[in-house]
Amino acid sequence: MSTEPLRIGLAGLGTVGAAFIKLLEQKNALLTRQCGRPIEVLSACARDRNRDRGVDLSNVEWYDDAVKLAEAPNLDVFVELIGGDGEPALSAVKAAIQSGKHVVTANKALIAKHGVELAILAEEQGVLLNFEAAVAGGIPVIKTMREALAGNTVSRLYGILNGTCNYILTRMEEEEIGFAEVLADAQRLGYAEADPTFDIEGNDTAHKLAIMTSIAFGTQIAGDDIYLEGISNITLADIRAARDLGYRIKLLGVAQKTERGIEQRVHPTMVPIESQIAQVDDVINAVVLETDLLGALLMSGPGAGGEATASAVMGDVADIAKSRPGRQHVPALVTPAKELAPYQRARMRSHEGGYFIRLLVRDEVGVFAAIAQRMAAANISLQSIVQRDDPDSPEKDSKAIILTTHATMETAVRQAIADIESDGHLRGSAQVIRMEPAG
Amino acid sequence: MSTEPLRIGLAGLGTVGAAFIKLLEQKNALLTRQCGRPIEVLSACARDRNRDRGVDLSNVEWYDDAVKLAEAPNLDVFVELIGGDGEPALSAVKAAIQSGKHVVTANKALIAKHGVELAILAEEQGVLLNFEAAVAGGIPVIKTMREALAGNTVSRLYGILNGTCNYILTRMEEEEIGFAEVLADAQRLGYAEADPTFDIEGNDTAHKLAIMTSIAFGTQIAGDDIYLEGISNITLADIRAARDLGYRIKLLGVAQKTERGIEQRVHPTMVPIESQIAQVDDVINAVVLETDLLGALLMSGPGAGGEATASAVMGDVADIAKSRPGRQHVPALVTPAKELAPYQRARMRSHEGGYFIRLLVRDEVGVFAAIAQRMAAANISLQSIVQRDDPDSPEKDSKAIILTTHATMETAVRQAIADIESDGHLRGSAQVIRMEPAG
Repeated sequence: MSTEPLRIGLAGLGTVGAAFIKLLEQKNALLTRQCGRPIEVLSACARDRNRDRGVDLSNVEWYDDAVKLAEAPNLDVFVELIGGDGEPALSAVKAAIQSGKHVVTANKALIAKHGVELAILAEEQGVLLNFEAAVAGGIPVIKTMREALAGNTVSRLYGILNGTCNYILTRMEEEEIGFAEVLADAQRLGYAEADPTFDIEGNDTAHKLAIMTSIAFGTQIAGDDIYLEGISNITLADIRAARDLGYRIKLLGVAQKTERGIEQRVHPTMVPIESQIAQVDDVINAVVLETDLLGALLMSGPGAGGEATASAVMGDVADIAKSRPGRQHVPALVTPAKELAPYQRARMRSHEGGYFIRLLVRDEVGVFAAIAQRMAAANISLQSIVQRDDPDSPEKDSKAIILTTHATMETAVRQAIADIESDGHLRGSAQVIRMEPAG
Repeated sequence: MSTEPLRIGLAGLGTVGAAFIKLLEQKNALLTRQCGRPIEVLSACARDRNRDRGVDLSNVEWYDDAVKLAEAPNLDVFVELIGGDGEPALSAVKAAIQSGKHVVTANKALIAKHGVELAILAEEQGVLLNFEAAVAGGIPVIKTMREALAGNTVSRLYGILNGTCNYILTRMEEEEIGFAEVLADAQRLGYAEADPTFDIEGNDTAHKLAIMTSIAFGTQIAGDDIYLEGISNITLADIRAARDLGYRIKLLGVAQKTERGIEQRVHPTMVPIESQIAQVDDVINAVVLETDLLGALLMSGPGAGGEATASAVMGDVADIAKSRPGRQHVPALVTPAKELAPYQRARMRSHEGGYFIRLLVRDEVGVFAAIAQRMAAANISLQSIVQRDDPDSPEKDSKAIILTTHATMETAVRQAIADIESDGHLRGSAQVIRMEPAG
């Protein structure tokens, strides 16, 4: 067992990088005791050397080039906090692995796009590729899936994986404020980016989902082959109707094994108000893993932020510090990367589940009957039907019809909606939100 | 990296042992691929060799003596599923460690009582002592605390750690049935033991809490030095009053660092109905870890059962299978066992928190004023006051007074209650339930 310091090269000194260095400074004695050896940042690189990050870098060797840092011979671990699925992150991580270093990264875009290739490289070199911080921030979901669930077969997983969306939905519900207004406020408070598209349209959730899907089902990562629906379309009327029916609306990433392949989907979802995941509010993330041995395992905690992300990075680094030198066998994606099966996507139209459908109609005789007939013709079994005045509509003669269905094929729902729309009774278009039986 | 089989000796073939062997049979290929080597049960022992357990033991070498099995030279790992804090479990685990084997155990009583001694032995021998299954069954809370939370400082942890109690409280609330009736039903269904004392009086929760406390705070395990209050005293009137105030009652184990030492306490607790932990129902367990870096991390899942417990045992075994040979540095209790600080108990009377107090009084003029005066005299700040008819009382002239307090010292509450009782207005004795600000 080595008691030599674990030597780290750190690329990227943004919020997470600075939090990681602070953490090492403040908890040095604790970490050394737990790991049996000190952890030291020997070298670092970032875009701007002179920016004040509130940390002491005077003893750290400075590199201007991340790839050069990754290749440096005097390091055990390369910590990549640069971000992005392109350069210099990709080349730097490859260079680190090829020069025999373990890699710890918080980069979800990189793993979602190049994870299989990097895992193959790491397994050839016998080094660890750890990326706990890439999924759900401070929640140890990767460790749980990679290690704790040995022998479990996952049937479905789902989660709240984007803090910005969850923050917006929570405030819309709690304060009865519309989407645009909450988004503007979230941007002002720093909870949403100036260009929020990547978060609110579900792309960020999709990256994290794709990584978990690969680990859960032993398939190649398919970050670009995911059904995506964001939250920008969700209105206060949806949120109120959900509440009246005993549901909340959350943006979920869901991966599920079916007979037709794997469903990977990101969409606003109605979850029962008495489920645990419905209570996950604000920027908090949560993941539920459904397995044959455990039923459902839920984890929730901070999905982002400097300290929470640094905590996940430190967990990965500490595992390396505690491990003994020599070749490692911990496949990055649990299944050895060369043996990952091809990803086979189940088409969304074959998805089967409950649906919430909100229709705004003219208040005329026969409209309701016409709608009911279209649903029946598509063989859709209705669970609940609510018809009422629509307080949000400027037109006095509008009614809202809110339907929820028993388990139904998506293709049937789409057909029924198309028929109802073509009948000409609707004001605007139908709102369709999937319902998930959440644990 | 070894590709030789990991050779296991398994002591104890009850529900968990049989589930473990079945799991190895059914998931052999999966586990071999993930671990890079096969896992094989070479030897086993149990009280009765001939009982039908639904598993094939024909290729397993049989021992009648667990200690002999633990000493056998041809094994890498000793899996202890005997249970109990005495013999033969204790001697067998010691013998395994002393003969250089890694140990995996599901035995919470053993770890709660002898964990420090066993950890010292394991660290001297450089072997792993893994006990994920001992706390919260299939929830990977030990792995999370030992590994994922490196660098975190825990301030408080709490959890629902006993499925029997949670099942009883859930059914009392959902079906409005009294404690005794639900308990009898739980016994009939196998959710409660014939002698349920150990579960319902909180001892089982205390064992698990003590182990987590040691890991969280770096102190010696103090399983016998815990404030204990079970659920047998909880009535439907409490549960209804809790609901009216926006709370649910859960049996929590709580460990908290204070200026006066560590509070370890097990008691019925009012948790806000909109908190996640309030939604943890039936036999499900949950743990919340509050740390400086993460805020709150919650995990919930199955706390018991053959398959869930076998899953945790398998996770521990797989970690050993993946690890390389040689001396290990993963202190069983995170802090090297010889460096654990003495446990210093904070006395319960110095506990500070919110309190729910339910008093049954004679419906007479002045009673309420007398009670209010006693609370004021003890300097207790009230948060809410409800006075109403008591539907559960056989006597028509009874009123229930339900008070909740802001953060208050326990000693003040005890004094006020003693004074109120001595005033002679009460029917029966006061019910006091602590409130926990749950995340």
